[in-house]
Amino acid sequence: MKLHGYYRSSTSYRLRIALELKGIGYEYVPVNLLTSEQKGEAFTSRNPFGSVPLLEADGKDRVQSMAQIEWLDEAYPDKPLLPQVIDDRYVARELAYAIATELHAPLNLPVLKYLKDPLGHSQDEIDNWYRHWLARTLDPVEARLAQLGTGDFLFSRPGFFEVVLLPQVYNARRFAFDFADKPHIERIEKACLALPEFQRAHPDAQPDNPENQ
Amino acid sequence: MKLHGYYRSSTSYRLRIALELKGIGYEYVPVNLLTSEQKGEAFTSRNPFGSVPLLEADGKDRVQSMAQIEWLDEAYPDKPLLPQVIDDRYVARELAYAIATELHAPLNLPVLKYLKDPLGHSQDEIDNWYRHWLARTLDPVEARLAQLGTGDFLFSRPGFFEVVLLPQVYNARRFAFDFADKPHIERIEKACLALPEFQRAHPDAQPDNPENQ
Repeated sequence: MKLHGYYRSSTSYRLRIALELKGIGYEYVPVNLLTSEQKGEAFTSRNPFGSVPLLEADGKDRVQSMAQIEWLDEAYPDKPLLPQVIDDRYVARELAYAIATELHAPLNLPVLKYLKDPLGHSQDEIDNWYRHWLARTLDPVEARLAQLGTGDFLFSRPGFFEVVLLPQVYNARRFAFDFADKPHIERIEKACLALPEFQRAHPDAQPDNPENQ
Repeated sequence: MKLHGYYRSSTSYRLRIALELKGIGYEYVPVNLLTSEQKGEAFTSRNPFGSVPLLEADGKDRVQSMAQIEWLDEAYPDKPLLPQVIDDRYVARELAYAIATELHAPLNLPVLKYLKDPLGHSQDEIDNWYRHWLARTLDPVEARLAQLGTGDFLFSRPGFFEVVLLPQVYNARRFAFDFADKPHIERIEKACLALPEFQRAHPDAQPDNPENQ
């Protein structure tokens, strides 16, 4: 299996965590978003969305991170990311899809670029935008975790929700988001980052991170 | 089962289509987004995200439309929305999640409101924003449908993808988006709108649509 991704792309980071938690070996193929490699013909002929990550497996290219993760969990049922009980699966998806559908897109690079040009906003305005949408979704995620009485992970071990949460928290910290009123999210973050699977998947550990070159 | 929603909310429309296609009877409970009813204590105590749709079933409240739809398909396996073959399930999710994760949030009411205030953009600038993101995701969705040689529906009958596509197309038409170069999407739209399930789910048929009052 080959994962075409970018070290700091949060959707690529989701896939790296998913593959690590499932114990699936893969080759990492860096795609340079800074030179818009994902918009070149060589890449878009394989992925019309022109986005990372692209997962190459069984001779097929698969894209769109949430569809990839759902597929991985069905095609490789060992070490499932989603729990087995239908109600628990719903809970994991509620929190993961809140982040993936409400929060991810407004914070993603194409939207941030559009705010700068053509809309002409300053970095301060963009930073406020970023933190506004983070709070709007992470506040209720934290409230839900409190209601559920969550411990170190949403369930007994990290899975579907943590795959989506950790990359978003990583991004939020780059924008100096204040987690002081989010003890559940911070506890889950800490517990995940202590695990070798999350350490290997982390942007800091990727070969295309300039600090490793 | 009770569906708390708003006639023009595209995520509420998704759920109405899903319930109709699965043949699950439900009571529709309108939530007035224009008076911010979804942000009131009576509603947020049941849904900390303060969003519609809320699905009341088996004595539980469930939220976040994609998690609700995945749950419905697992808890009520008759008339499945997702195909049975794992690879086909991936294809349906790739296209549905492209719309749900990339496209929905930047076009959703909270983001459009923020562009107006505090960011101070004109309606023309907001309309351009809207059409920009529509094209960015619907162009590759159309390309994928062409690659797949899609007919009236993605598979033999409407399901997971059409549940997400139709509400987005409905919204796009309100913003005068040009579908001239999207024959596959237009053909699927036409085939769906000819079915009684989609007609019953349509915003025009809802009791909280002012034209019905």
